[in-house]
Amino acid sequence: MTEKQHQPLKVSRRDFVKGAAAGATFLAGASAMTSCGSAAPVPASGLPEKWDGEADVVIAGFGGAGAAAAIEAAEAGAKVLVLERTPTGGGSTAICGGIIYMGGGTPLQRALGFEDSRDNMYNYIFASAGDGADEELIGLFCDKSLELYDWVTGLGVQFNESFMEMKAAGVPTGDGLLYSGNEKQAQYAAVADPTPRGHGAFADGRVGGHAIFAPLKVAVEASGAEVIYEALVRSLVVNAEGRVVGLEAEIDGESKYYKANKGVILCAGGYAANAEMVELHCPECLRCAANVGTPGDDGSGIRMGQGAGGDVRMLGETAPFAFVYGSAECLCRSILVNGKGQRFVGEDNYGEWVGDLIVREHNVAYLVLDDAVWGMVPEASKEYLTVVGQADTIAELAQGLGIEPGLLENTVQLYNEYAAEGEDPLFHKESTYVVPLETPPFYALFFGVEATAFFTNGGLRINPKSQVLDVNGEPVPGLYAAGRNAFAIPARHYVASGVAVAEVLTFGRIAGQNASAEEPGQ
Amino acid sequence: MTEKQHQPLKVSRRDFVKGAAAGATFLAGASAMTSCGSAAPVPASGLPEKWDGEADVVIAGFGGAGAAAAIEAAEAGAKVLVLERTPTGGGSTAICGGIIYMGGGTPLQRALGFEDSRDNMYNYIFASAGDGADEELIGLFCDKSLELYDWVTGLGVQFNESFMEMKAAGVPTGDGLLYSGNEKQAQYAAVADPTPRGHGAFADGRVGGHAIFAPLKVAVEASGAEVIYEALVRSLVVNAEGRVVGLEAEIDGESKYYKANKGVILCAGGYAANAEMVELHCPECLRCAANVGTPGDDGSGIRMGQGAGGDVRMLGETAPFAFVYGSAECLCRSILVNGKGQRFVGEDNYGEWVGDLIVREHNVAYLVLDDAVWGMVPEASKEYLTVVGQADTIAELAQGLGIEPGLLENTVQLYNEYAAEGEDPLFHKESTYVVPLETPPFYALFFGVEATAFFTNGGLRINPKSQVLDVNGEPVPGLYAAGRNAFAIPARHYVASGVAVAEVLTFGRIAGQNASAEEPGQ
Ligand SMILES: Cc1cc2nc3c(=O)[nH]c(=O)nc-3n(C[C@H](O)[C@H](O)[C@H](O)COP(=O)(O)OP(=O)(O)OC[C@H]3O[C@@H](n4cnc5c(N)ncnc54)[C@H](O)[C@@H]3O)c2cc1C
Ligand SMILES: Cc1cc2nc3c(=O)[nH]c(=O)nc-3n(C[C@H](O)[C@H](O)[C@H](O)COP(=O)(O)OP(=O)(O)OC[C@H]3O[C@@H](n4cnc5c(N)ncnc54)[C@H](O)[C@@H]3O)c2cc1C
Repeated sequence: MTEKQHQPLKVSRRDFVKGAAAGATFLAGASAMTSCGSAAPVPASGLPEKWDGEADVVIAGFGGAGAAAAIEAAEAGAKVLVLERTPTGGGSTAICGGIIYMGGGTPLQRALGFEDSRDNMYNYIFASAGDGADEELIGLFCDKSLELYDWVTGLGVQFNESFMEMKAAGVPTGDGLLYSGNEKQAQYAAVADPTPRGHGAFADGRVGGHAIFAPLKVAVEASGAEVIYEALVRSLVVNAEGRVVGLEAEIDGESKYYKANKGVILCAGGYAANAEMVELHCPECLRCAANVGTPGDDGSGIRMGQGAGGDVRMLGETAPFAFVYGSAECLCRSILVNGKGQRFVGEDNYGEWVGDLIVREHNVAYLVLDDAVWGMVPEASKEYLTVVGQADTIAELAQGLGIEPGLLENTVQLYNEYAAEGEDPLFHKESTYVVPLETPPFYALFFGVEATAFFTNGGLRINPKSQVLDVNGEPVPGLYAAGRNAFAIPARHYVASGVAVAEVLTFGRIAGQNASAEEPGQ
Repeated sequence: MTEKQHQPLKVSRRDFVKGAAAGATFLAGASAMTSCGSAAPVPASGLPEKWDGEADVVIAGFGGAGAAAAIEAAEAGAKVLVLERTPTGGGSTAICGGIIYMGGGTPLQRALGFEDSRDNMYNYIFASAGDGADEELIGLFCDKSLELYDWVTGLGVQFNESFMEMKAAGVPTGDGLLYSGNEKQAQYAAVADPTPRGHGAFADGRVGGHAIFAPLKVAVEASGAEVIYEALVRSLVVNAEGRVVGLEAEIDGESKYYKANKGVILCAGGYAANAEMVELHCPECLRCAANVGTPGDDGSGIRMGQGAGGDVRMLGETAPFAFVYGSAECLCRSILVNGKGQRFVGEDNYGEWVGDLIVREHNVAYLVLDDAVWGMVPEASKEYLTVVGQADTIAELAQGLGIEPGLLENTVQLYNEYAAEGEDPLFHKESTYVVPLETPPFYALFFGVEATAFFTNGGLRINPKSQVLDVNGEPVPGLYAAGRNAFAIPARHYVASGVAVAEVLTFGRIAGQNASAEEPGQ
């Protein structure tokens, strides 16, 4: 019996969002759910006689993946056209936390004294991506990681030569390198030597996505690629042989058709902002407080790809976030329990592991701590926390939370017994965080599903050339996808902060290289 | 940190299958994984000049859904053609456990003194289907339940007028009615009055699917519908407007084309036997011991529907089974623990709830019992159980299983403390099963993911007319789907034994009625 169904909500909507903000990085991107228009393909036979424009490579969406694809295709000599629905582009990439996951011995890793290798990186990613991890795509991603470092720094992305020791959900300090995932967790440390791979981009005194997207945009402008803003791509145009030969976009309220002589690349983001798709594929996420992204994450790219015969892969897979240490590292000294008072994850785990279990399984979750831990939480961080219980004994705290008598008491007692020795046999939390919870009053912080925020990892099925594949595993001629539009690196788990932008750039580049190398197709 | 990745296997392949057989009903259907051919659509423009055959309604697959669709379409006066890959048809329907889930006050429920109503049935199904449950489809399913009873009994399906008290994974006794799901679990009993709805079909002294499929086959033959056996449907034929106008099948090694004047209905089963699709959509299930179905469950129907522009819904959703009471009801007196010695589900839960948690979350699972419970297990049942531990103390048992010291001991101690009062505050297991585990030796039975068996619930997205919908939510003209080919009743959970056959028949009938009522489309 799971705890999911029909649980009464415990906190107000305002509180949920506050709770979600515990992973403070994400709040900026929380956006309302939207719904979207047509996505079925237009048969080429039904077109007006004249196209409104023409290029070798036409790209839908000007975020990270679209920019990377445009730069590579233009550099290879192709005529490139990018269509972007907003007036400025950037998408999630421009508002993200600014972390890029790279390894294998980057200059920054080496300068800061960390060892890494391509295989060590592969082993961590493959293990932590969980079920469904793709050997070939992850292998390629790791092969290209050092090259990606050179490429982004070559474009002007900067990383400060400093390492952040603190456990955090982002890089508020402006440091250039951090452990951004679960590399140090016992389970993964057993398969790969822990080393930090989160590279924090920094520019103009600020961390964040603008430090990544601003240089990309400059490079796109310099490359000769044309970008049309406020152009909402709605359908692909498919000829009688099933080849994608262009697309249709709404510009100033009118339908415009653009011919793609070599290929179309879908780079239009995920679908977390499309409530209908969320209900069809990952319905639990309707209970999350927010989605991590922009209103552009309406799944339009994925749906256009499906409409043109593209298959999907783990389409319902999401990355829901709940960072125990989102507000303050000391909170790892708490225990996280479900509605039955059971612990279910090591509290120092990366927020996606925590959120995934809450959203998929437990629904109800509380962080339980004592006054000693509470005293360590900076006042400014407390604003992001929702206290739903305070009591002088664990039994009273449990009663207030509606947990059956005896259960939470048992959990705390077992935890404390081992914690006195610095041990956590259940989850092998790092010993620095393992301290008995003994000093009243005790507190419970709300961490249920309504305090999580998510983005989507599932998407179109691609091959290592970033070509969209049909249900037979054959490329849909003329069609590529990259970024959140496609399934690539995260499988059941989102591996670490920075993986999204790194895969977006890696597969965007690959798509641009391959599309520009196609023979004109019609 | 979950326990899923890279766990060493604890038992041999032979043992896994033995373990899976604990839900003994399912063993018959366990089949090897296969892979399949083409599924992308054929453009009508590329067809030979003459079709090889023609009908109003053409049906792919002659199992339960296909038979129900054929009967209804033929009764409505349509010319019907059914194409079936095997020499006999029947699919999973013919080999299933024979339970059909019906309620709302069927004659059998009433004769045996059980009250039920349409709304009571709806409330149970809606709550237990979990996240993603569709109000409209479930409502329709409940509306049509009494009619389904009349229809199947009218065709000659029989149910003995007797109620089975025993908790079991099937109806070995030949009784006509049983609790086949989680109706009595505290969580669901809180939203719907518990009443049994599993109707066990019985014929020729045997329970099982043949008692359902044999009368259906007779009715199809009598209806005037034509069935072509050993015809492997490979592609849909789609005209320039995107309408499905027929299909292509391989017969005797040759391609044959059949025109469908009104519509094609996809009734070709699930995809659990297609390892490639399992990897793409529900990769955990690659670790299951077996799939519950036939080699025909290769996803061909789903893939053809996708190829023709059909959208999917919760495509990665599966029903993995692990019945604690599969071999003997007394096993509910055990406790089921994960690799950390924690309980995670009430042991009297329906096998899908148990299996789902094992496959999705815990991976490792052991059933822990004492000699008193072991002594109650019939000798014949022991053959289906894989003993992986025996010891005089819980601590020694835990050590043998590789569970960290102290954890299982704590779990058993907590359990016993409350069990002494007949209580189970963690999962509210029925009190008859709640007895302290105190009599050495203690036993551990293997219940990990490698002892589970699964089928798939995700599929094509349909509306209440059983029409396949595209990514815009619009019907793909001329295309219907029913049964395991389509997502309908189970969402995150498979609601109860009998729901599959009941939905297969209900939506097969609906598809047949609606397809036959279409205006000829070309
Ligand atoms: C607040 C926040 C913090 C994050 N932090 C990190 C981090 O530190 N590191 C990391 O790796 N990841 C992070 N992520 C995730 C990461 O930013 C995204 O997954 C990634 O940037 C997505 O890149 P993309 O190119 O696929 O999509 P986007 O960058 O979102 O670009 C998609 C573009 O397509 C446009 N578009 C959509 N539909 C259409 C259409 N129909 N027609 C025309 N244009 C269209 C959109 O307007 C948008 O500009 C964060 C995300 C958020 C929101
Ligand atoms: C051992 C076992 C026990 C079960 N017990 C129960 C139970 O007691 N109650 C319950 O409700 N459910 C039970 N189930 C599940 C239930 O039987 C199935 O979900 C249901 O019968 C599926 O019906 P269907 O019409 O969708 O597919 P099926 O009955 O499997 O029919 C599909 C047909 O399509 C054919 N086919 C497939 N591909 C093609 C193609 N490309 N071209 C032509 N033909 C094709 C197949 O050969 C098959 O005949 C059980 C299943 C098994 C295996």
